[in-house]
Amino acid sequence: MEIQFLGTGAGVPSKQRNVTSIALKLLDERNAVWLFDCGEGTQQQILNTNLRPRKIEKIFITHLHGDHIFGLPGLLSSRSFQGGESPLEIYGPKGIKSFVLTSLKVSESHVKYPLKFIEIEESGLIFEDHGFKVYCDELDHRIQCYGYRVVEADFQGELQVEKLKELNIPAGPIYKRIKNGETVELADGRIINGKEFIGESRQGRIVTILGDTRVHPNSLKLAQHADVLVHESTFNHEESKMAKNYYHSTSTQAAEIAKEANVKQLLLTHISARYLGKAVFDLEKEAQKVFPNSKIVRDFDIIDIPLKKD
Amino acid sequence: MEIQFLGTGAGVPSKQRNVTSIALKLLDERNAVWLFDCGEGTQQQILNTNLRPRKIEKIFITHLHGDHIFGLPGLLSSRSFQGGESPLEIYGPKGIKSFVLTSLKVSESHVKYPLKFIEIEESGLIFEDHGFKVYCDELDHRIQCYGYRVVEADFQGELQVEKLKELNIPAGPIYKRIKNGETVELADGRIINGKEFIGESRQGRIVTILGDTRVHPNSLKLAQHADVLVHESTFNHEESKMAKNYYHSTSTQAAEIAKEANVKQLLLTHISARYLGKAVFDLEKEAQKVFPNSKIVRDFDIIDIPLKKD
Repeated sequence: MEIQFLGTGAGVPSKQRNVTSIALKLLDERNAVWLFDCGEGTQQQILNTNLRPRKIEKIFITHLHGDHIFGLPGLLSSRSFQGGESPLEIYGPKGIKSFVLTSLKVSESHVKYPLKFIEIEESGLIFEDHGFKVYCDELDHRIQCYGYRVVEADFQGELQVEKLKELNIPAGPIYKRIKNGETVELADGRIINGKEFIGESRQGRIVTILGDTRVHPNSLKLAQHADVLVHESTFNHEESKMAKNYYHSTSTQAAEIAKEANVKQLLLTHISARYLGKAVFDLEKEAQKVFPNSKIVRDFDIIDIPLKKD
Repeated sequence: MEIQFLGTGAGVPSKQRNVTSIALKLLDERNAVWLFDCGEGTQQQILNTNLRPRKIEKIFITHLHGDHIFGLPGLLSSRSFQGGESPLEIYGPKGIKSFVLTSLKVSESHVKYPLKFIEIEESGLIFEDHGFKVYCDELDHRIQCYGYRVVEADFQGELQVEKLKELNIPAGPIYKRIKNGETVELADGRIINGKEFIGESRQGRIVTILGDTRVHPNSLKLAQHADVLVHESTFNHEESKMAKNYYHSTSTQAAEIAKEANVKQLLLTHISARYLGKAVFDLEKEAQKVFPNSKIVRDFDIIDIPLKKD
C-alpha cells in the first residue's frame, strides 16, 4: 500500500504543483489503484509515474470545485482509448454524474468499460468488500465537501497446517478449534495450545483523505488512529483568518487534528502557490511544532504505508 | 504576429506532445492572443510560455472532441482567478456553450469577466473589425468540425505629411488627392506625383488553422494563398486507409493541399503518439517531397509570421 501525490497545489496549477489528485496504490492488496480527486492535467501527471489508468478501479471525489474534477473527462476517455475494460466507479457529491456525462456526451466520447456513479446522499459507510471499507463524512467548505476514511480489513493469522501435520495431528473438526486458538486435548492425550499454531495476524491499515475544509469535528472523527492522514494546508498560521474566510485550513490546524486524532503520520497537501522554497519549509515546521511526524508533500511523492503487526 | 503551439499530439496526451491548442499571438497588432482549441492541460502548458491568460481575447474551437476542449473550463476559471477582467469570446460548434456552462455551474466557478459564446450556425464570415476578418468553413471529420481563416486587413501606406511640408506644400484638400496617388498641379505650377508621397503599403497576412479532417475541398478554399497553413497530420502516407477510416489526414495529403492552395508555409500538427524520433522526421520528409516548406511542429514551437511587402 502506497500513496502517491499527483497534484499538491491549491486552486490553480503552478509550475511547481499541479491541482489536486491523489492515488492510493493497492496493487498488492487488490491489484488496483484508487484515485482521490482528479484536477485538470491528472492524466498528464500519470504519464510521469508507473500508474496505469486501466488499474484505476474507483475514483473518490471530495467536492466539485474545478481544481478537483476538471481532469475527469479526459482521464476517463483516455482510459478507454488505452484499452481499459474493467469497471470504474466514481463516488462523489451530487452533480458529479451530470458533469461527467455532459462532458462525455458533448465530446462524443464513448467509454468502453462499465462506468458507475455513486452520488453520496448520506454520510457513513459507502463501500465494503472482503478487503476494505470506505466511510465518508461532510466537511466544512463553501461547497458540499467530503472526507474519506479507508479501512483495511484485519487479517486473522492462518492455521499452520504443515506444523500440525508434522506432529501427526490429522485433519478434522479439531482443526477449527485449534484455529480459534483454543487449548484442546487430542485423542492420544496430547494437549495442544491453538495459539501456537496460528500465523501472525495483522491489523488493517487506515488511510484518511480529507477534501478542502475549515477545522471541523468530522475531520477528527474520520482521522481517528489513522496510519496516514492527508489534510489540506492551503495557508500558514499567520493567515488563519484568510483560511477561515476561504473555508480552508492552516498547517497548524491540520497538525492539531492529527495530534488529537492520534494518527501515525500527517501528509499536508493543497499548498497555495504563494508558498515557495523556504516558505514551504516554514509551513512544514509550523505543523511539526504541533505534530512532529508532519510532511508537506510535493507532486509525485510516494509514501509507503507499512503493514502493522499486532 | 507569431503562432505558438501549446499541444501538438492527437487524441490522448503523451510525454512528448500534449493535446491540441494553438496560440495566435497578435500582440503588436491588437495586444491580444487568440487561441485555437483548448485540450486538457492547456493552462499548464501556458505556464511554460510567456503567454498571459488575461491577454486571450478569443478562443476558436474547431470541434468538440475532448482532446480539443477539455482544457476550457480550467483555463476560463484560472483566467478569472488571475485577475483577467476583459471580455472573452468563444467561437465553436453548437454544444460548446452547454459544455462550458455546465462545467462552470457544477464547479461553482464564477468568472469575473464577460464571457460570450458564438455557436456557429452558418459558415462564412464570423468576425470582422478594423484589423481582422475571420472566416470559417466545415471540414470532414466524424463530428461537426471547422477550419478557420484569419485575414489581416491590408495597410494602406500613410501620407508623408512631413515630406510635403518640407516642400512648402500647404495642407488642404489637395492632400487627399496626393494620398490617392494622383498626379496634381500645385498653385505655383509645380507638378507632384502623389505616389512619391505615400509610405509603404502592406498586404495583410493570412493564417489558416484547420481542425481534424479528411481531405476536403473546403480545406483548399480556406487555405488559398495563406502565409501559414496549420494542418493536422495524424498519420503517415502508408496509413492513408486508416486516416480515411478515422477521418484524419496524412502528412502527404496535407502537403498536397498546401501546394494546391499556394500557401507560403505548412505547419503540421496533431501527430499520432505512434510516431517518435525518426518516424517524425520521415513524416516531415514525406510532406516536404510534395511541398518543401513543410514543418512538423513540436509543443512550444514559435513560428514568426513576417509582414508582407507589396
